[in-house]
Amino acid sequence: MSDSPARVLDALRRAGDASRSGQDVSGQLGVSRAQVWKHVEALRARGYRIAGAPGGGYRLLDAPDRLYPEEIQNGLATRWLGRIVHWLEETDSTNRVALDLARSGAAHGTAVVAEGQTAGRGRLGRSFHSPPFCNLYTSIVLRPTLSTAEAPTAILAAALAVADSVAGELGDGERVAIKWPNDVLVDGRKTSGILVELGAEATRVAFLVLGIGVNLNVDPASFPEEFRSRATSLAAATGRTIDRAAFTRSLYGTLERVLDAHARDGFDAIRPGFEARFRMRGQAVRVTDLGGAEIDGRVSGIDADGALLLETADGRRERVVAGDVTLAKDGDAA
Amino acid sequence: MSDSPARVLDALRRAGDASRSGQDVSGQLGVSRAQVWKHVEALRARGYRIAGAPGGGYRLLDAPDRLYPEEIQNGLATRWLGRIVHWLEETDSTNRVALDLARSGAAHGTAVVAEGQTAGRGRLGRSFHSPPFCNLYTSIVLRPTLSTAEAPTAILAAALAVADSVAGELGDGERVAIKWPNDVLVDGRKTSGILVELGAEATRVAFLVLGIGVNLNVDPASFPEEFRSRATSLAAATGRTIDRAAFTRSLYGTLERVLDAHARDGFDAIRPGFEARFRMRGQAVRVTDLGGAEIDGRVSGIDADGALLLETADGRRERVVAGDVTLAKDGDAA
Repeated sequence: MSDSPARVLDALRRAGDASRSGQDVSGQLGVSRAQVWKHVEALRARGYRIAGAPGGGYRLLDAPDRLYPEEIQNGLATRWLGRIVHWLEETDSTNRVALDLARSGAAHGTAVVAEGQTAGRGRLGRSFHSPPFCNLYTSIVLRPTLSTAEAPTAILAAALAVADSVAGELGDGERVAIKWPNDVLVDGRKTSGILVELGAEATRVAFLVLGIGVNLNVDPASFPEEFRSRATSLAAATGRTIDRAAFTRSLYGTLERVLDAHARDGFDAIRPGFEARFRMRGQAVRVTDLGGAEIDGRVSGIDADGALLLETADGRRERVVAGDVTLAKDGDAA
Repeated sequence: MSDSPARVLDALRRAGDASRSGQDVSGQLGVSRAQVWKHVEALRARGYRIAGAPGGGYRLLDAPDRLYPEEIQNGLATRWLGRIVHWLEETDSTNRVALDLARSGAAHGTAVVAEGQTAGRGRLGRSFHSPPFCNLYTSIVLRPTLSTAEAPTAILAAALAVADSVAGELGDGERVAIKWPNDVLVDGRKTSGILVELGAEATRVAFLVLGIGVNLNVDPASFPEEFRSRATSLAAATGRTIDRAAFTRSLYGTLERVLDAHARDGFDAIRPGFEARFRMRGQAVRVTDLGGAEIDGRVSGIDADGALLLETADGRRERVVAGDVTLAKDGDAA
């Protein structure tokens, strides 16, 4: 949306339940009354219900359930994250769009939001199921001062921010856990996927793109069969409809705080928060490394650099910096 | 060049100093004699001197000083590196081209070669001076199984391969040194620039692009004044013209060997070779880290993960994983 309809919307929002005359709005924004009318029509075309007619007063009745920039930014309390939002009704992958923006020089904190993804991407080349108009799919361009070696901890920072936002929505942190490195679980079921992609010189990160998908209002019964027993949504977990724009604002605020701390002091800064949501200690797991080799062991903790620590059945200590972790039914491993 | 002129060229090369009749070549390649003539004309247009006329015999007199794929691949003894070469007379940056190819799915080992670069890139956002038709500017697409944390060692592997190839051309390894992480020096002067860029998930490298520029036949007197005292070319160092295609073949062969070893066993595999060319031990240096902070110290070695080890004047041990290293005149630092 061009700037002016957003300004008309803002003027109507500020009036609350009261009507504002077209003359008023026209005077405040410095545009003609005919233009105010045009902008009101543009807002209506996007799903805003606005009472009133040209010459009379206008009143905002209802905003559509869309993650438009003006919805997300309405009350957004961040300094740099989401100050620019690119909204797409549908795209292949918000990470793909954000990577293109990053390569073209997009600013730190630029966000992409799509109502649906046709080819949502997950870690390790997997796909991310992305039904339209019910969840959050967002990707953020970051330009941190970060060495390539530290990049893996960015995904842990993102997982922490998502977990904290989900806990806030649930009002019950005990139900929320992080499965290393990046899955956020509610009652043991996956609610969120995170994918960090980056462009770098060998030793220096040029940009990061942080992709986050959160199951908000999707009906878990609609999941593909192979995920159904292992995934849920916040609506299913709370029994109420989630305000998607409000959740997005909360997530952006938490993310900005966590990422600022991470930029200042690295993984150390977020480690206590991460440990508090990390419930894998003692759990039997199977790790498949990048080369395809498997290690069975029991989780003994998180290392200072964010690596997962395992103890194998024969007492060896293994560090996992990258790879895929499967929870074993207890007794299967270690 | 389309495939067929390259096959005609190959047939003429195999004949050595002998003439081959158009009928012979036509029969061997399964194309008409008129087409053979057309391909000979195409080769001549690219600078190949070929004696002969339609109806008579053809003989290759001379190949142009160009890094055409058919020049580089003529005798190339690699399995995967440079089996596909994209040649460009001029481009902004071979790394930019190779990054685009990598994103479009180009195979492991795909090479880009340009005769000149208008915006050659160096490390840390610097430019790389790239005059046309005299040097080597090449970028290779790699798809290694590599964690992001290990990516910094790829630049050390590349530096080692370039140093070994330069030493081979000079016939005197004592004159060749590596300035950590990526400069190859001859008699203390820079002859090569290396830039590794990559696309990755947080923990897993998706692709690497290895950009290498080597000063082969450029006249050091033509360098911009600020480099003149610190840079040289292999021609200046040897007093003879370097066969650019032969050097490129040798470099590709050495690179493939070093990269295969690196893929198998990580930095460990190349560490002895790297240490042999690493002459910085005891040297006073100033390191500027990614955040702009400076550390003065004396180089004490290379760590197991390829990091530079420093000892500061007050006896602290510092590890440098990323940053810019300036050699201090002895006495300036540490």
